[in-house]
Amino acid sequence: MDIVSDDPVELRAAFRAGWSPRSTARLAPGRVQANLVALPAAAALDFAAFCQRNPRACPVLAMGAPGERVLHGVDLATDLPRYRVWRDGAAAEEPIDVAALWRDDLVGFLLGCSYSFEWALGQAGLVLRHWASGSNPPIYRTTIPCVPAGPFAGEVIVSMRPLRPADAIRAVQITSRFPRVHGAPLHLGLPGLIGVDLERRDGGDALLPEADELPVFWACGVTPESALRAAKLPFAITHYPGAMAITDLWNADLAE
Amino acid sequence: MDIVSDDPVELRAAFRAGWSPRSTARLAPGRVQANLVALPAAAALDFAAFCQRNPRACPVLAMGAPGERVLHGVDLATDLPRYRVWRDGAAAEEPIDVAALWRDDLVGFLLGCSYSFEWALGQAGLVLRHWASGSNPPIYRTTIPCVPAGPFAGEVIVSMRPLRPADAIRAVQITSRFPRVHGAPLHLGLPGLIGVDLERRDGGDALLPEADELPVFWACGVTPESALRAAKLPFAITHYPGAMAITDLWNADLAE
Repeated sequence: MDIVSDDPVELRAAFRAGWSPRSTARLAPGRVQANLVALPAAAALDFAAFCQRNPRACPVLAMGAPGERVLHGVDLATDLPRYRVWRDGAAAEEPIDVAALWRDDLVGFLLGCSYSFEWALGQAGLVLRHWASGSNPPIYRTTIPCVPAGPFAGEVIVSMRPLRPADAIRAVQITSRFPRVHGAPLHLGLPGLIGVDLERRDGGDALLPEADELPVFWACGVTPESALRAAKLPFAITHYPGAMAITDLWNADLAE
Repeated sequence: MDIVSDDPVELRAAFRAGWSPRSTARLAPGRVQANLVALPAAAALDFAAFCQRNPRACPVLAMGAPGERVLHGVDLATDLPRYRVWRDGAAAEEPIDVAALWRDDLVGFLLGCSYSFEWALGQAGLVLRHWASGSNPPIYRTTIPCVPAGPFAGEVIVSMRPLRPADAIRAVQITSRFPRVHGAPLHLGLPGLIGVDLERRDGGDALLPEADELPVFWACGVTPESALRAAKLPFAITHYPGAMAITDLWNADLAE
């Protein structure tokens, strides 16, 4: 199935009708896409605190009331291309719809996503190398601890984009204006200081800096997934990696 | 002579009366200090264009009319601790007063100085290593060309401060708010890309990054001095290095 539309309402309708593209990257240009975490109200207060204490990794764009299914135009149970269902801290199923699993005590969180800050970098004329190949930036687990909250804990996970120094400075300036979608880089250069060996990634696709580039690291939306594993909750729902919630929000409106 | 006051009016009076400290660093905390360039009106239009085209190295805080001696409270001919007089592109004299040399056709420029952005970094809790020793950061001539204007040309000169990566990111954020005092770094990491060998400085005092630090480079107010040498003007006046013009302006008011 081809891309049906640039309109988030029509895209969500297509997902609801069963269209399940592998990734939502490059869909609905300019719109905010988000990570989804939905978990029982009994754990939601701790998770809200975890996000508040780790805002670079887990910036909250929206938080629903218990049972509330629609946030920023997205029906959390039907409007994403694919989901992950977590049972006892492990990914158990990967359905394209979770309406039958939705519960009245589930609290949904939409968390900012790197697609938004990459959009901002592109608007400023920067070109990220992984775009050309349609791949994902490499992901690394760092030795930087998250500030724990209740059962949620773990290390910050980062994505890495190689940039020439002047572009790295520009990228700090641009992404600093977008704290709700991971904001400024956490680190750049000297990967060993945060426990990263660039040759040994924990996710994403392979990409190494050239001789004229620095590795630039942003906190990554995979961090909450890692915290979910640590928390070993009996039940939770997230988006399937890359298959994000496409909201009605505009990236441009998130600029501080 | 001890420091007479934190008040710029009293400090300038003391300089006018003959006090000539080697450096104005740490005097008049919070006030804007500036580089001085005064040159004949016949060359001033080209110099104004040079500054406009190279705003990181030569950010103009004030530009006088021909013969105008007082800018932001500073009598340009008497109120600095020491001067350099340039003849045919070379530093010829270093008097503590240039009232006898002042001419009705001289146009004064006050250019932003690193003391201001270092103040901003200090306000944000960063500690620069050269502060502890009371020394100056190392200065390097890069291979980055200035955009020329008339006879003014040359390479951008930079100062280098070693910072840990997270502090380097913070420093980009903070100094980006101060474009009138050199603004964001020009470069960080990978000094060879801008023609710099950290072991071979062109000024300032020796300071090398530790293993957990990156070299961070800002455009430096020595750049216009280099352009003056290139222009070989028959006559010009600047401040003596480190002995800046202390203005009535507050650094905090320069934040964009």
